[in-house]
Amino acid sequence: MSVNNEEMVVTPWEVTGKIDYDKLIRDFGTQPLTSEILDTIRKHTGELHPQLARRIFFSHRDLDWILHRYEAGEKFVLYTGRGPSGPVHIGHLVPWIFTKYLQDKFGAKLYFQITDDERFLQHDEFSMSEPAKWAFENALDLIALGFDPKKTRIILDTKNMDALYGLAIKIAKHVTFSTAKAVFGFRESTNIGMAFYPAVQAVPAFLESQLVGHNVPCLIPAAIDQDPYWRITRDVAPKLGFYKPAQIHCRFVPGLGRAGKMSASMPETAIFTIDNPQRAKKKVMSAFTGGRATIEEQKRLGANPDICSVFAYDYFLFMNDKEIEDLRYNCLAGNIMCGECKLKLAERVEEFLIEHQAKREKAKDRFEEYLFNPKDSW
Amino acid sequence: MSVNNEEMVVTPWEVTGKIDYDKLIRDFGTQPLTSEILDTIRKHTGELHPQLARRIFFSHRDLDWILHRYEAGEKFVLYTGRGPSGPVHIGHLVPWIFTKYLQDKFGAKLYFQITDDERFLQHDEFSMSEPAKWAFENALDLIALGFDPKKTRIILDTKNMDALYGLAIKIAKHVTFSTAKAVFGFRESTNIGMAFYPAVQAVPAFLESQLVGHNVPCLIPAAIDQDPYWRITRDVAPKLGFYKPAQIHCRFVPGLGRAGKMSASMPETAIFTIDNPQRAKKKVMSAFTGGRATIEEQKRLGANPDICSVFAYDYFLFMNDKEIEDLRYNCLAGNIMCGECKLKLAERVEEFLIEHQAKREKAKDRFEEYLFNPKDSW
Repeated sequence: MSVNNEEMVVTPWEVTGKIDYDKLIRDFGTQPLTSEILDTIRKHTGELHPQLARRIFFSHRDLDWILHRYEAGEKFVLYTGRGPSGPVHIGHLVPWIFTKYLQDKFGAKLYFQITDDERFLQHDEFSMSEPAKWAFENALDLIALGFDPKKTRIILDTKNMDALYGLAIKIAKHVTFSTAKAVFGFRESTNIGMAFYPAVQAVPAFLESQLVGHNVPCLIPAAIDQDPYWRITRDVAPKLGFYKPAQIHCRFVPGLGRAGKMSASMPETAIFTIDNPQRAKKKVMSAFTGGRATIEEQKRLGANPDICSVFAYDYFLFMNDKEIEDLRYNCLAGNIMCGECKLKLAERVEEFLIEHQAKREKAKDRFEEYLFNPKDSW
Repeated sequence: MSVNNEEMVVTPWEVTGKIDYDKLIRDFGTQPLTSEILDTIRKHTGELHPQLARRIFFSHRDLDWILHRYEAGEKFVLYTGRGPSGPVHIGHLVPWIFTKYLQDKFGAKLYFQITDDERFLQHDEFSMSEPAKWAFENALDLIALGFDPKKTRIILDTKNMDALYGLAIKIAKHVTFSTAKAVFGFRESTNIGMAFYPAVQAVPAFLESQLVGHNVPCLIPAAIDQDPYWRITRDVAPKLGFYKPAQIHCRFVPGLGRAGKMSASMPETAIFTIDNPQRAKKKVMSAFTGGRATIEEQKRLGANPDICSVFAYDYFLFMNDKEIEDLRYNCLAGNIMCGECKLKLAERVEEFLIEHQAKREKAKDRFEEYLFNPKDSW
C-alpha cells in the first residue's frame, strides 16, 4: 500500500508526484478557503456544495473581495475552460459541476474557453483537426451538465479570435518573453505561438468588462495547475484598468491507478464520458484500492480509504455526507471488502454514464446556441 | 556636399547609414534583377515601368519562377502592406504605384495588409486608437492610387484576425523564439505579442491558397527592409505544403534632407500625402541639393545629381526618361541652378498633392468596398 512519493510537479502541462496542497498554497501564494468565507457563501446559497464542505475547492485568491462586491450589488461573471486534446474524463467534470452550482446560486454568466489553439501549438503530432474534433466533443459534456444557455457562452479560440485578439495584444504588450519563460518554463525552442498564447488565455477574464464598457468582477473556478496563467493575468489587469480576476482552486481528481491525477494519457485509469458504460465498469473493477493483502487481514485490521481510488470517486462525485461517513467508518473497521465497494462504484459510474451520454446526444443540437458571438447581447 | 557614411543598418524597424544595395543583395542572399528577367516582363507588359528600367526595384527572389508559372497559365496574387504608425509620405507610394502596375498588367489580385497590431505592439506610447486612425487614413492613400476594387482587398489585422489566426498558428508552430530572435533581433524584453507577430505578417502570402484550396503563387513587392519576414515565411512554406512567396525588392526613397530614407520621424524632410500643398512646396524649397557653394562655382563646375534629394524625387516619381536625362546633363554641366530645380519640383509636388487629395476624399466612401471579408468570393 505504498504511495507515490516522487517529487511534486504542478504546472499547466504536468501534474505528478504526491500532491501537498498546503505546500501549493504556500508556493503559489494563494489563500486557504476559511470557514469564514464558507459562511459568507452559505448566506447566499442556502446550502454549501459538497465540493466546498469537503474542501475539494480548497484555495482562492480574492474570493472574499468578490463576495463583498456581490453583497454590494455587483454581479460577477465566471470563467473556466478546457484544452481539447482528447475526451473528457469524469475528473474534468468535478470543477464544471461546481461552476454550474455557482452559476445557479449567484445567477452568474459563464465564459467557457476551449483552447484549441493551445493544444494544436503544444502537441507536435496534432494537426488542426484533432483539437477541432475534441473541442466539439468536449463542449457536449459541458452542455450535458445543464448550464443555462442564456447565461453560458463557449469561446472557441480559433473561431472567436476576431473578438479576442484586440484584448490579447493589449495584454501581450505587458508580458515580456522573459516573464513568460519564468512563469511557464518556456525555452528558446518554444514556438512563438505558445509564447503568445498566455495572452489569449487571459482574455476571457476581461471580456465582459470590455463588452459592457465598465469593470465587472470575474471569478475563475479551476484546478490549481492553471494558476500561472492567472498570475500573469492578475499582473496585467491594473495596467489595463481592469479588476484582477478572483480565483477558486480545486484539487486534482485521482486516477483509478496507484497515484496521480486522472489523466487522459493513462486511459486504463481514467473514465471517459464517452466510454462504453460496460467498459467503464470494468475499469472500476480493476481500480487500485486501499485494501489489505487478504480478506482475513482486512476484516481484522480494516483498509485505508485515504489512498483508495474507489473511495476518492465516491468522495469527489457520488456520495452525500452521510454515505461517505458510513463508508469511511466501515472501511476502517473492516466491515466492507474492496470487491463490494468497487462493484457499487462501478454501478454508479455505469448509471451516471448512461444518463450523461443521453444528455450529450441531446446537446449535439444545442451546440450553436452556446457559442460565443460578440454581436449578441446576452 | 559630404554624404552620410555611417554604418548601414537595414531592418524592418530601422534603415540608416549609406545604403549599399549590392551589399544588401549579398547579405540577404537575394538575386539582382537581370536584363533577362526584364525582357520576360516586357513580353507581357508591352512597356517596362520606369521603376524597373531604373532599377528602383533592383532585387528579387523567385521572380523568374513566378513568371514561368504565369507563362504556364498559373496566375499569381500580389501581397504588400503598410504599418499604420503615421501619415503616408510620398516615398511610401513608390512601391504601391509599382504594385498597381503589376495588378494592371498581370490581372493580379492584391492582398494589402495593414498591420495595426504590430504598430500598437511596437510603440510603447501607442494606444490602440493611433494605429486604428492611421489604418483608415493610410488605406485612403492606397485606394486613391486607383487599385481595382474587384481585385484588391485590404486586410486589417485586428479586424480580420478570425480569418488569419488559423494560418498564423500553423506558421507559428514552425518558428521558435530562438529563430525569431536571430532573424529580427528580438530580446528577452520583447513582448510576447511582437514575438508572435512575424507569423501574422506571413499569413497573407498563403491566404489565397488557403481560400481557394490549392496552391497559388504569390509575389511580394516591397522595400527590401521587410526581407526578414519573407525569409521566415519562405522557410515555413514547404512545411505547410505552400509555395514559397516570390519577392521583388525596391530601394528606399530618400528624404529631403542630407541622407537617409524619407521617414515620418523627420517630418520636415518628408512630404506627407495629407500635407497642405503650400506647406509641402515650402519643404521642397528647403530641400538638400547637390549644388555648389556659389552660383558662380556651380556654373563653372556643375552640380552633383547623385546626392541631390530634388533630383531623386524627379527620378523616383515624376520625370520620364527624356526629362531625367536632360536634367542630369544640365545639372552636371552647370546649366541649371538648384533654385530653379527646387521650384519646378515644388510645383509638381503641389500639383500631385492637390490631385491625390481629391482622390483621397472620394476614397472615404469606398473604404468598405476594399475591406477583406473571408466570406466574399472575389
